[in-house]
Amino acid sequence: MTSSPIRILGIDPGLRRTGWGVLDIEGNRLMFVGCGSVETREQMALASRLLAIHEGLGRVLDEFRPAEAAIEQTFVNKDGVATLKLGQARGVAMLAPAMFGIVVAEYAPNQVKKTVVGAGHADKTQIQAMLKILLPKADPKSADAADALAIAITHAHHRGAAALRMKVAG
Amino acid sequence: MTSSPIRILGIDPGLRRTGWGVLDIEGNRLMFVGCGSVETREQMALASRLLAIHEGLGRVLDEFRPAEAAIEQTFVNKDGVATLKLGQARGVAMLAPAMFGIVVAEYAPNQVKKTVVGAGHADKTQIQAMLKILLPKADPKSADAADALAIAITHAHHRGAAALRMKVAG
Repeated sequence: MTSSPIRILGIDPGLRRTGWGVLDIEGNRLMFVGCGSVETREQMALASRLLAIHEGLGRVLDEFRPAEAAIEQTFVNKDGVATLKLGQARGVAMLAPAMFGIVVAEYAPNQVKKTVVGAGHADKTQIQAMLKILLPKADPKSADAADALAIAITHAHHRGAAALRMKVAG
Repeated sequence: MTSSPIRILGIDPGLRRTGWGVLDIEGNRLMFVGCGSVETREQMALASRLLAIHEGLGRVLDEFRPAEAAIEQTFVNKDGVATLKLGQARGVAMLAPAMFGIVVAEYAPNQVKKTVVGAGHADKTQIQAMLKILLPKADPKSADAADALAIAITHAHHRGAAALRMKVAG
């Protein structure tokens, strides 16, 4: 690992709200860069909502030019309609960094919680409290933006190991 | 409706194989234009597979410049993992025409079968037999390409009514 900062984009996908968070990691120091969310209205046609997510994340990628990206693995439940909606948003959200030639790492929700809080079953309040400690300058206006930053932090901590696994797998 | 031909793209989305079919409708005459499928290998990273679907459909849109597009509504079942996979592919497949400014209509599988065969519970063989009659020049090499053509035919038959509904809804 070099000592120049690596910029990481975290994405928390959702059809109604897709959170994004950008941070720099230099050695083991984390620096907040930006966060926000792309929102779409339920009244819009599905294709228009997917296009809005695509364009919103495209603007984030254009502005911040991250070197790496990470997205949460989706929790699959018995609600097929919800899973399908989330899947469609997630597919489009994963595509955006891929179109910029950026590898997208995936992390399970429990892995994110364990990395950020230290326990796999932490709740949202605990994650947000730890975010304030790890990224004091971050001001997420929504839970999705906070989650996206947590995913970026998770990638910052695991990226060495992930790169190793990819080398072995590839 | 004018008498100049309208070009329609039908899409049958899937992570492993996304079928596409293009036809022209002039009055009530259907003319086959092209069909095929975009295939991705299971060994590829998910983001790379989604990018391949995006680029494959992008090439089809670039080459054939359809005016309208249609996609099958996804059948949601209890297999959450399969639903998520399909959802991700479907989101990316819907995005491609949306990026070209093309409205994407959605049709339920039963509606496609009823339009093409005349019965909501037709099997694949019946659909392929009807395709040979409706589009004699079509030569789909895969079931996905045939399904995509069936979706395009469905849109060709329903587009008047769909446009009307959109006007009312918008």
